[in-house]
Amino acid sequence: MAGFRFRCTECATPYDENDVRLVCAACADKQEPGGVTRGVLEVELDELPTNWPQAPPSHPDFLTAFLPIPSAEHLPPLPVGGTPLVAAPQLRQALGMPRLWVKDDTRNPSGSTKDRASLLVVAKAREYGYDTVAAASTGNAATALAAVSASAGTRAILFVPANAPEAKLVQMLSYGATVLPIDGNYDDAFELCLAACEEFGWYNRNTALNPFTIEGKKTAGLEIAASLAPEVPDAVLVPVGDGVILAGVAKGFSDLDRSGLIDRVPRLIAVQPEGAAAIVTALTEGRETIRPIPGAQSVADSLTVEAPRNALQCMNVIRASGGSGVAVSDEAILTAIPRLASLSGVFAEPSAAAGLAGLDVALEEGLVERGERVVVLVTGTGLKDVPAAARAVERPGVIAPTLEAVAARV
Amino acid sequence: MAGFRFRCTECATPYDENDVRLVCAACADKQEPGGVTRGVLEVELDELPTNWPQAPPSHPDFLTAFLPIPSAEHLPPLPVGGTPLVAAPQLRQALGMPRLWVKDDTRNPSGSTKDRASLLVVAKAREYGYDTVAAASTGNAATALAAVSASAGTRAILFVPANAPEAKLVQMLSYGATVLPIDGNYDDAFELCLAACEEFGWYNRNTALNPFTIEGKKTAGLEIAASLAPEVPDAVLVPVGDGVILAGVAKGFSDLDRSGLIDRVPRLIAVQPEGAAAIVTALTEGRETIRPIPGAQSVADSLTVEAPRNALQCMNVIRASGGSGVAVSDEAILTAIPRLASLSGVFAEPSAAAGLAGLDVALEEGLVERGERVVVLVTGTGLKDVPAAARAVERPGVIAPTLEAVAARV
Repeated sequence: MAGFRFRCTECATPYDENDVRLVCAACADKQEPGGVTRGVLEVELDELPTNWPQAPPSHPDFLTAFLPIPSAEHLPPLPVGGTPLVAAPQLRQALGMPRLWVKDDTRNPSGSTKDRASLLVVAKAREYGYDTVAAASTGNAATALAAVSASAGTRAILFVPANAPEAKLVQMLSYGATVLPIDGNYDDAFELCLAACEEFGWYNRNTALNPFTIEGKKTAGLEIAASLAPEVPDAVLVPVGDGVILAGVAKGFSDLDRSGLIDRVPRLIAVQPEGAAAIVTALTEGRETIRPIPGAQSVADSLTVEAPRNALQCMNVIRASGGSGVAVSDEAILTAIPRLASLSGVFAEPSAAAGLAGLDVALEEGLVERGERVVVLVTGTGLKDVPAAARAVERPGVIAPTLEAVAARV
Repeated sequence: MAGFRFRCTECATPYDENDVRLVCAACADKQEPGGVTRGVLEVELDELPTNWPQAPPSHPDFLTAFLPIPSAEHLPPLPVGGTPLVAAPQLRQALGMPRLWVKDDTRNPSGSTKDRASLLVVAKAREYGYDTVAAASTGNAATALAAVSASAGTRAILFVPANAPEAKLVQMLSYGATVLPIDGNYDDAFELCLAACEEFGWYNRNTALNPFTIEGKKTAGLEIAASLAPEVPDAVLVPVGDGVILAGVAKGFSDLDRSGLIDRVPRLIAVQPEGAAAIVTALTEGRETIRPIPGAQSVADSLTVEAPRNALQCMNVIRASGGSGVAVSDEAILTAIPRLASLSGVFAEPSAAAGLAGLDVALEEGLVERGERVVVLVTGTGLKDVPAAARAVERPGVIAPTLEAVAARV
């Protein structure tokens, strides 16, 4: 790594690393709809690798070459990323898409893409001298911070809505984090985390606020690109809640584009549930800003946000890539869980299976051609939300232990 | 790969690959306690690599070099194995063991070590021309077979006790397997699966019966060895139910020992729950055979067997390695879940956390020295059994969204 600076994704103001922690001072106070963050900062590295790193994508040295840290030793010791790009022949055949891949990010240590962000955030927290990192989250981001912090010996304080999913809550508690179930919704938890970080001097990992969350998630894009190089995918489908994972994937590709290692950024296609489709609606209607969706609801808990906090940057990178957005029903999301699992062997939580549901819509709407190189990012394991998966499968009845009973069933 | 034969682990009779599918005919009918399998076959390759394969352990070519298949193309397309060997500094410090590693097999596609066995079994099933593979299992083995079969387009028929854990049941259904919940226990399911395979001409993946389960699981041993080469671990702790994972890990090391790539097999230490410790008891008492434990019980569902089916071979390889066995209480297993998670970032199900609980006992009993090179195999993710993990953590109360409430809690 050489040096880097932050640059505001709205007004392009550059900031020295030591002058700012979260967002652009000039943009932060601009009027914004709902809880959309203004002045999101992006990391701009002075130098990027101009050859593919020798190490394979599963090796820390591969990612470190693109990250704003001096070396792999600066990363917490938990192995994150290096997840497989699965060429699932059954799924390809079922969809008639011979160049389709599934990026299986369920293989991360806590079971979701969020580990990528937490890895870099905790690395920077340690570099900056913080002993505590805090985050507000409905589940996966908090769990990821808990896992990475456990490995690094850093204290994690997690602000979660009291109704967070059971599996995620138990998992973050197991990692030894201080969990604060808040009598309120995600927005309440988010604001309280922000205030508490200022009050108590903690480092804030909140998504769409801490610039290293996007920078960490960009490793998903880097790995996809490295796995397919020298080819470049035509389109990548990404489930969108706050829009940070999509922005991260886009950043990976745009860094590679800047470095000359690829010649274009793939079309980024945002997938949102119909009940929480603020970004997709704004894209479809050609608007610059989103309209919040009061009482947003979906079976995909990680995607259920009223006002996507990273909406502005997310829409910018989608448009710049020639991409688009698609909305999917809860029924399509639930159906996609067993469909993805039974055709690829990848078991996804609702928010992650949404990518496959979105692919159906994208094909219907002509946003993706069947012959194109397409990647669907699967962001979290189905074991995070077994009750949702249970709704999508038929439960077979118990049989007597006899061959006759077996014969009758098969 | 060159050729290979099967060899009976009891009477050393060799068999041509085409002459046998499951166990040694000469030994199969010998008297055995409970359901212990007699005449378990081992794969004996004509040639083994004499140099470490160029590909890293995460690449299919690495494993294929040691497996009884012609090339990586013969494997189902689901990426299995290549899981990280985690050097967890916090855990090392807490235990005073500077050369301790955690082999994190929760990162396999269905979340457990069993994927390794299923990968090879389905590869061989396809080679032999079977379109259906069946298995009896309390959970992880069936789930693994379902996942791998889904990716390969092979039919999976799963015989599971009707009271199998919810998460595992939903997961295998999601993969599209034909699930037959049996009104009976694991033994009933096992016998029924055996009879059904004969009746209907299906390939049988049952553990301790199909020789490729051990051969597939040996990849865990190969990867541990490759990650530490040229050093060799002094001891490896493995949770033991039927004893097939341990036998598999041992096979990996003994293949490497035969090939000259390492100079000894590490001491293998079996960890069983106190309520299902047939192998550990037989080892401790110096007996050749186990005594079944009627009504065996433990919070670690995958380890709860009355008569470990692979007991004979498992005890043989442990003794040959200079290893031993330790029994752990259910309380120690449950406590080990948050301890492992909070000190390493690896979240394990009870059966998998048992390895860490066993390490405590092994240290106490002087079976392992703190300065030795020790690996603990973590066989399945904690997300497989969230209710168990929930029993091991304290649930924090809900707080009001105010800084005062936060201050009072932290």
